[in-house]
Amino acid sequence: MSDIRRRRVPRPVREQQIIDAAIRVFARRGYHAASVDEIAEHAGISKPMVYLYLDSKEGLFLAALRREAERLLAVFRAAAVPAHSPELRLRAGLLAFFTFVTEHRDSWVVLHRQSSEPSPAITAELARSRRALLAEVTGLVRADIAASDGPARPDDDAEFVAYTLVGAADSLTDWMALHPGEPPERITLRLMNMVWVGMRNVLDGEVWTTPSQLP
Amino acid sequence: MSDIRRRRVPRPVREQQIIDAAIRVFARRGYHAASVDEIAEHAGISKPMVYLYLDSKEGLFLAALRREAERLLAVFRAAAVPAHSPELRLRAGLLAFFTFVTEHRDSWVVLHRQSSEPSPAITAELARSRRALLAEVTGLVRADIAASDGPARPDDDAEFVAYTLVGAADSLTDWMALHPGEPPERITLRLMNMVWVGMRNVLDGEVWTTPSQLP
Repeated sequence: MSDIRRRRVPRPVREQQIIDAAIRVFARRGYHAASVDEIAEHAGISKPMVYLYLDSKEGLFLAALRREAERLLAVFRAAAVPAHSPELRLRAGLLAFFTFVTEHRDSWVVLHRQSSEPSPAITAELARSRRALLAEVTGLVRADIAASDGPARPDDDAEFVAYTLVGAADSLTDWMALHPGEPPERITLRLMNMVWVGMRNVLDGEVWTTPSQLP
Repeated sequence: MSDIRRRRVPRPVREQQIIDAAIRVFARRGYHAASVDEIAEHAGISKPMVYLYLDSKEGLFLAALRREAERLLAVFRAAAVPAHSPELRLRAGLLAFFTFVTEHRDSWVVLHRQSSEPSPAITAELARSRRALLAEVTGLVRADIAASDGPARPDDDAEFVAYTLVGAADSLTDWMALHPGEPPERITLRLMNMVWVGMRNVLDGEVWTTPSQLP
């Protein structure tokens, strides 16, 4: 490592530049077609230097994945602050998510599980980042249940609602790709319209029945 | 082909047996670790015969994917019959979906995009089957809008609702893997609880606003 200390750019800064370049290239080419040559070129450094910093193409992808997953989680957490009502927290969290996807489309392509799962380590990392997001949303919904006056709920209700929300938001990022002009605010509003009332009903213990079952 | 005619089992039957075996092996091992040897063994025929029928490991996966995608779509269509009200059609379609996933977990692992995307042809086929399902659900929601008394809706509303529903249902299949005892009927009921009222509100043109925006 001592040979790196001589370079003008400090290691942490250089690493971030390489990850920036990796995200651009992985998002455009996909994992298999992406080359470390092109990533090095984008980062403006030599290929051996890229290997020295981040070890392998897989190492580059994992570093990109981890950084962007943490970034998305941080953005979500910062938006959905506990001081607000559950309703406003959910709205803020969704808006932060859709804004992130709009503004960092390349990051989202890397994070999105559809982008391919090239190795067991990457598959595991993608699953980990998804679980972290699901845990975050489950916690938010659980806090909402705890704060509400509704009857006691089955313990897995918060988790069920979180899977529904995360799946819906995930799928809507594909819809966004087909409607690039749609602002994140409008997508958030439409999703809130669709899930908020129903979510409240579920959490308040109201039960939908098929019309034919009604008296 | 004349050498096949001599065999006791007719070609279409044999092909279905090979596909059955392929689904079992792909679901358990994943695409990359699955071997044509094991698939042949499960199907009870020789490996060269498997290649003769379905060409390659990729060919086997594509045949499995196409057959199960059509099966799922057929099950969904048969359940969501136009004669019923939109509410009952949605419930029946969701129930058919969750029942399929419960009863044919191996098929779902092959269909689920998380199962990996080993080649461009397979990625394209997965995307095609997802688009077909989205188109089906969009059509259902659009028919619902046309039949309702609500105000005229933006043309992309049905598609937005369909992406939300398909994403939520997709994500809930992961939740089901964590809760194997949960019957499809209960999952359907909980999802209906969560989305039905909201979906009606969106389609009837009611707009949710953040509480702070209210007078």
